[in-house]
Amino acid sequence: MKCSVIRVAAGSPSDVSMLEKDIEEGKIRPREVIAVIGKTEGNGCVNDFTRGYAVQTLTGLFREYAGEEGEQIHYVMSGGTEGILSPHFTVVSKTAGTSGRSGSNEIKSLAIGVARTRNLLAEEIGRRTQIEEVAAAVGRAVRDAGIERHDDVHFVQIKCPLLTAERIRAARERGARVVTEETYKSMGYSRGASALGVALALGEVDRDTLAESDVCSDWSKYSSVASASAGVELLCCEIIVFGNALGADGPYYIDHAVMKDAIDGGALGKLLERRPTGAELVQVLAKAEADPTGFIRGSRHTMLNDSDINHTRQARAVVGGVLASVCGDPMIYVSGGGEHQGPAGGGPVAAIFRRRE
Amino acid sequence: MKCSVIRVAAGSPSDVSMLEKDIEEGKIRPREVIAVIGKTEGNGCVNDFTRGYAVQTLTGLFREYAGEEGEQIHYVMSGGTEGILSPHFTVVSKTAGTSGRSGSNEIKSLAIGVARTRNLLAEEIGRRTQIEEVAAAVGRAVRDAGIERHDDVHFVQIKCPLLTAERIRAARERGARVVTEETYKSMGYSRGASALGVALALGEVDRDTLAESDVCSDWSKYSSVASASAGVELLCCEIIVFGNALGADGPYYIDHAVMKDAIDGGALGKLLERRPTGAELVQVLAKAEADPTGFIRGSRHTMLNDSDINHTRQARAVVGGVLASVCGDPMIYVSGGGEHQGPAGGGPVAAIFRRRE
Amino acid sequence: MKCSVIRVAAGSPSDVSMLEKDIEEGKIRPREVIAVIGKTEGNGCVNDFTRGYAVQTLTGLFREYAGEEGEQIHYVMSGGTEGILSPHFTVVSKTAGTSGRSGSNEIKSLAIGVARTRNLLAEEIGRRTQIEEVAAAVGRAVRDAGIERHDDVHFVQIKCPLLTAERIRAARERGARVVTEETYKSMGYSRGASALGVALALGEVDRDTLAESDVCSDWSKYSSVASASAGVELLCCEIIVFGNALGADGPYYIDHAVMKDAIDGGALGKLLERRPTGAELVQVLAKAEADPTGFIRGSRHTMLNDSDINHTRQARAVVGGVLASVCGDPMIYVSGGGEHQGPAGGGPVAAIFRRRE
Amino acid sequence: MKCSVIRVAAGSPSDVSMLEKDIEEGKIRPREVIAVIGKTEGNGCVNDFTRGYAVQTLTGLFREYAGEEGEQIHYVMSGGTEGILSPHFTVVSKTAGTSGRSGSNEIKSLAIGVARTRNLLAEEIGRRTQIEEVAAAVGRAVRDAGIERHDDVHFVQIKCPLLTAERIRAARERGARVVTEETYKSMGYSRGASALGVALALGEVDRDTLAESDVCSDWSKYSSVASASAGVELLCCEIIVFGNALGADGPYYIDHAVMKDAIDGGALGKLLERRPTGAELVQVLAKAEADPTGFIRGSRHTMLNDSDINHTRQARAVVGGVLASVCGDPMIYVSGGGEHQGPAGGGPVAAIFRRRE
Repeated sequence: MKCSVIRVAAGSPSDVSMLEKDIEEGKIRPREVIAVIGKTEGNGCVNDFTRGYAVQTLTGLFREYAGEEGEQIHYVMSGGTEGILSPHFTVVSKTAGTSGRSGSNEIKSLAIGVARTRNLLAEEIGRRTQIEEVAAAVGRAVRDAGIERHDDVHFVQIKCPLLTAERIRAARERGARVVTEETYKSMGYSRGASALGVALALGEVDRDTLAESDVCSDWSKYSSVASASAGVELLCCEIIVFGNALGADGPYYIDHAVMKDAIDGGALGKLLERRPTGAELVQVLAKAEADPTGFIRGSRHTMLNDSDINHTRQARAVVGGVLASVCGDPMIYVSGGGEHQGPAGGGPVAAIFRRRE
Repeated sequence: MKCSVIRVAAGSPSDVSMLEKDIEEGKIRPREVIAVIGKTEGNGCVNDFTRGYAVQTLTGLFREYAGEEGEQIHYVMSGGTEGILSPHFTVVSKTAGTSGRSGSNEIKSLAIGVARTRNLLAEEIGRRTQIEEVAAAVGRAVRDAGIERHDDVHFVQIKCPLLTAERIRAARERGARVVTEETYKSMGYSRGASALGVALALGEVDRDTLAESDVCSDWSKYSSVASASAGVELLCCEIIVFGNALGADGPYYIDHAVMKDAIDGGALGKLLERRPTGAELVQVLAKAEADPTGFIRGSRHTMLNDSDINHTRQARAVVGGVLASVCGDPMIYVSGGGEHQGPAGGGPVAAIFRRRE
Repeated sequence: MKCSVIRVAAGSPSDVSMLEKDIEEGKIRPREVIAVIGKTEGNGCVNDFTRGYAVQTLTGLFREYAGEEGEQIHYVMSGGTEGILSPHFTVVSKTAGTSGRSGSNEIKSLAIGVARTRNLLAEEIGRRTQIEEVAAAVGRAVRDAGIERHDDVHFVQIKCPLLTAERIRAARERGARVVTEETYKSMGYSRGASALGVALALGEVDRDTLAESDVCSDWSKYSSVASASAGVELLCCEIIVFGNALGADGPYYIDHAVMKDAIDGGALGKLLERRPTGAELVQVLAKAEADPTGFIRGSRHTMLNDSDINHTRQARAVVGGVLASVCGDPMIYVSGGGEHQGPAGGGPVAAIFRRRE
Repeated sequence: MKCSVIRVAAGSPSDVSMLEKDIEEGKIRPREVIAVIGKTEGNGCVNDFTRGYAVQTLTGLFREYAGEEGEQIHYVMSGGTEGILSPHFTVVSKTAGTSGRSGSNEIKSLAIGVARTRNLLAEEIGRRTQIEEVAAAVGRAVRDAGIERHDDVHFVQIKCPLLTAERIRAARERGARVVTEETYKSMGYSRGASALGVALALGEVDRDTLAESDVCSDWSKYSSVASASAGVELLCCEIIVFGNALGADGPYYIDHAVMKDAIDGGALGKLLERRPTGAELVQVLAKAEADPTGFIRGSRHTMLNDSDINHTRQARAVVGGVLASVCGDPMIYVSGGGEHQGPAGGGPVAAIFRRRE
C-alpha cells in the first residue's frame, strides 16, 4: 500500500479548477482517490451550505473522471475559514502498488484506512450505541490501514450525523427519546460520542469506567487523535484513520501532538522539530475550541458569551492563526467543536510530512 | 519623571472592581494616572457602545478618587476582544518624583508624553491638515516625554475623530467637502492621516514626497510605531507617546518591532529574546489588520469578503492568538484597523518590560 | 391616582438629552417617575451592554434631579432595535393627586402598580418557586395599582434574573441543582416561569393543573398579558402592572390583544379600531418570537437554523415592522423571547391611548 | 402566448424535491420554463454561496428533464430569507399555444419577455454604458413580451454583474478606471445603473437630464418597476420583463404599486383591493432597503450603523414581515438593495394574480 496527500487551493466552495489541473497534469489520479477533506468558507454551523455545495461539485467532478469508482470517495467538508485560514481540499489517495523504496520497509510510512458504521437511529446518537459502533468501525479502519499498534494511529477523522427536527419527530412517534431536542446541540453530542468511540478503540479510555453519561460531561475522558465533524448529509459515521505502518510505502508519514489550549503553538513546534532532516510539511490537521471554563491561562475570554459570533468561529480563527504562525502556512485544516477531542479547551494537532527521497 | 504601567482585568465594560482594589491597596495612585488604555468586549466598529460605557464608568471612578485632576486623564478604549483576548485596562501613571535608581540614569527608562491637536473641522479629517496637526502634536508629546531621539519612540497611540452624518451635513452647509460620505470609511481615513502624521513627525516619511492623496492609498508610506483608533467621542486628536529617555527613571522600559503580516509572531519573539535578563513582560501593544490584497503568504484569505463578520474582528482574533501564543498571556492590547500603521497587512508590536531591580 | 406615559427618543444608549429637555420643560417631573422602560440598540442577548449603559446613565440623571427618590425608579431596558425599531425611553409617572376630570370617574383610567419578589436562589429560577413568588408579587402590584378585576390588567412587564456561571457554581457547592447549566437558556426559563406566574395570578392557568415541568415545555399554558425580560443586573423579579381602574384618573388608558403569530398585525389593528373617537396612540408594547415549530402559516422559516443572526433579533425586526406598519410609528416597544407570553409563535400586544380631553 | 407562474417551496438551496414532484405531476413542463426566480437562505451579500448552489442544482435538474433547452433558462437567485420569509422558487413558464380563453382577448394577461445585454467591461459597470445597454435590452424584452404600452410593464427583474478584485485588476492593467474599487459597493452601482436603464427605457427619467453621476447619488431619479440583483456569476445583464398584454392569454396577470417606505404595507393592500373578484394572489415581488437618511417616519433607525448585521438583511426582515402581514403568506419574493428602484427607503411591490376562470 502507498498513501499520499495533496493539498489543492479552492477559490470558492465550487471551485475545482486547481483540482482539475492537478488531475490533468497527472498529480492526482482520480481512481486512486479515497477521500477529500476540505475547508470551505461557510460558518461551520447549522446553516452552512458551503459543505454540501463543495460535495455536490466534487461528486460531479469525480463521477466524470472516475466513473462509479468515484462514488466511493469519502468527502469530509469542514466549514469555517475564519481569520487567515485558506479554503482548500486535501486529497487523499491510496494504491496497492509499491514504490522504489520498498526494500527499506523497516521505515513506517503513511497508512490510511476507512470504514463506516451502520446507519444510526436518532435515539442512538450521542449515546452508548454510537460510542460502540464507532469504536468497532475504528478497529476495522485501523486494520484496513494495516496499522499494527495503537501508538501508530495519529489522526482519526470522523464525519457523523446530527439530529434534525424531522428525525426527532420520527423518534418521538416510535416512542423513543433523543439525547437532546436542540439540533445545534446534537452536533456536539454526536461529535462527543464519536470521539469517545475512538478513545475506546485505541485504549485511551477504559470500557468499564466509561459511562454513557460521560458524553459532553466528563471532559477528563478524551481521545488525543480524534477529530469529529457533524453533518446533516449522512446517517452513519464515516471514519478515516491516519497512521504509519511498516506495510505502507512511500515518502509520506504522519505525527501528532496535543495542544493543551488554543494558544499552545508549541505542540506543532515540537512536531516540526522532531521531523527527519529535510522532511517537508505537507498538511496540518487540528481541532479548535473555546475553553469551556470561560478562562484561558487564567484570563477571562469572551467567546462563550458572544451572541454575535459563535464561539466555534472565533476558536478556529485563533487556532488557525497560532498554527499558521508556527508553520508559516495558512492553508491548513482547523476544524471547530472539540468535545472529547483532546483535553477541554485544547485539541489534537497532526502533521503529515513528506520525507526527502 | 517616573512612568509606570499596570494592567487590570475587567469583568465587563463597567467593571472597575479590580481597579478599585488596586487603588485601595495603593498600587495605583489616582492623582498620578495620566491615561487608561482599555480593551472592551464590543464589536470595535461603529455601534460599539462598550467604549463609551467604560469611559463613563472610569470617569466616575476617577472623579471620586482624584477630583478635578481625574478629569485630565486620557481614555483610549479599543473595542473588540475576539478569540482569546481578555478585556482589561492598562493604567499609565507618571510622577515628577525620582526613584532611588536616580544615580544610574545612563540607563533609559519608560517615558510617556501626551498632547492634543485643536479640534478638527469635518473637512480636515483624512486630509493634509490632520496629518500636519498630528505631526505637530506628536512633536509636543515627544518633548513632554523628554525623549531625545526619534529612535527612542516605540509606540504612539492616537485617539482621533470620525465623521458622523451630522458633521458631514454641517460641512456641506458651509460649502465644504469631506473626504468620504461614509461614516465607517471615515474611521479609516482618520486613522490613516493620523498615522502619517506620526510618520512625518518621526521622519519615517518625507514631507516633500508625502501627498494628501497618499492617505489610504499608498501603503508603502507608514509609521512603524503608530497605533490609531477612531471614536465618535472627540473632535481633536489625542496623542500618547511611549518611549525611553535618560531623563526618565524607574524599572519600566519599552521596545518595539514590526509584524510583517498577521501571523508574524516572530516579531514579538525577537523583543522577548533581546530583553535584559530577568526583565518581566508587563504589556504588549499591537495593531491587527486583514491583508488588503486578500492573500497572506500566498494563500487566499476570506476576511474581506465576509459579510457576516467584519474583517477587523477576525484580524484581532488572529493577531491576539498569535501574540498570546508567543508571550503566553491573553490579556494584551490588540487593536484593529491598521492603515499606514506598519506595512499593509502587518503592524507595529510594542512590549513594555519591567527590569529586575 | 393619576398615571401618565411619555415617550422620549434616545440618540444612543447614553443619550438622555431629550429626556432632560422634557424635564426642563416640565413635561416630566422626576419625583413622580416610577419606571422607565427602554429599547436600546444592542443585540438583546447575553453580551448586550447597552442595557446597563442606559441604566447607569438614567440613574445618574434621576439622582441629580430627584435625589434619593430617584433611586426607587424601576428600569426595564430591553435590547434590540433591529429593522425599523427606534431607540427610546418610555417614562411612566404616577401621582397621588387628581385631575380636573375627577368628577367623571365612572370612566376607568390607566393605573400602574409595582412590586418585587424576594431575591431568588439560583436553583429556584425556572422552577415552581419562581412561578409562585411572581404570582404573589403580581397580586401585590395589582392591588398597588388599585385594579379591581383581572380583566382590567392589560400588560405585566417583568424584569427577572438569569443564571450566571458564578451562580451555578455557588448552587452546586451547596448541593443544589439548577434548571439548566447554560446561561443563555436560563433566560428563557426565567422568562417562562415569570410569565406562568402572571398567568397564575390572573387566573389564566389553573394552579392544580400547572406543573413545574410545564415551564418551557407546555406552550398551551400562557398569559395573554405577560412580557418578561431577563437580565444579569438583579436577583429578584420586578413587576410593573399596567391596567385600567375606576380609582385612577387622567386621560390615559390601556387596551390589549393577542397576536396569534409574528405577522398578525390585525391584533393591533383591532385595538386602534375600538378606541374612543379622538383617542391618540401613545405607545405600543409587544413581544416577538420566532415560531418554535419552524413554520409560520404553513411555510418554513429559517430563523431557528440561522447561526449568524440570533432568532430573537430577527423576530423583533419582523414584529416591529408589522406593528409599525399598522400604527405608522416605529418608536414602539417590541421585546424578544416570548416563552408562555401569548401563544407559541405569537404574543401579547398592548396599546396605551390618551383620550381627547 | 401564455405565461404562468408557479411557486414551489425549497427545504434548502439544493432541495428541488417539490419542484420535481410538480414536474412529475405535470404541473410544470420543463421545456416551457423560461426563468426561475428564487429566494435562498444565505446572507444575500458577497459571500452568499446559496445562490450558486441553487443554480447548480437547478441546472442539473433541468438538463436532465429538458436537455439542451434547459440550458436557456434564466436563473435569478436572491439570497436572504431573514425573519419570516420562506425559501422557494418561482417558476416562470411561457408557451406559444393559446388557452380556451382566447376569444376574450380584450382582457390583458400576463406577458413575460427576456433579453440580455452584451458582456460589460469592468469599467462600464455603474456607468452610462450600463444604463444604455440595459435600456436597450429592456426595450427588446418588452417587445419579446408583446407588451404595447409602458404602463403595462409592472416588474422588471435584472440580474447584473459586479466587480471582483480580478476584474478591477484587469481593467487597471489596460489603463481603464472602474467606478469603485470596493467589490461590495460595486453591487450597488451595478444595481443602480441597471435600474436607471429601466427608468430610461420606460420613460420614467428623461435621457437629457440623466447624468452618469446620478448613479447612487440622485435618488429622485428612479424606476417604479425595476428590481435589480447583482451577482458574480455573469458578465452581462439579464432582463426579465413582467407585464400584461392583449396578445397574451391565460388567467394570470400582474399589477404593481410603490411602497413609499419599508413599512408601507398599504401599497400591497391597494393591489389586493383592486383585484377582480375571486382573483387569487399567486406571488408578491418586492424590493427592500434601509432608508438612507437614517430615519423612517421621522424616527431614527439603527440599521445603517449596525456593524453586526448588514442593513440589507434587516430591511428584508422588515419588508418581508410587513408584506406577509398584509397578504397572509410568507413565501414571497423580497430582495434587498434598492438603489433607484423606487423612491429612497421605499421600493416597488408587484403582485401576480390568477383570475377565476
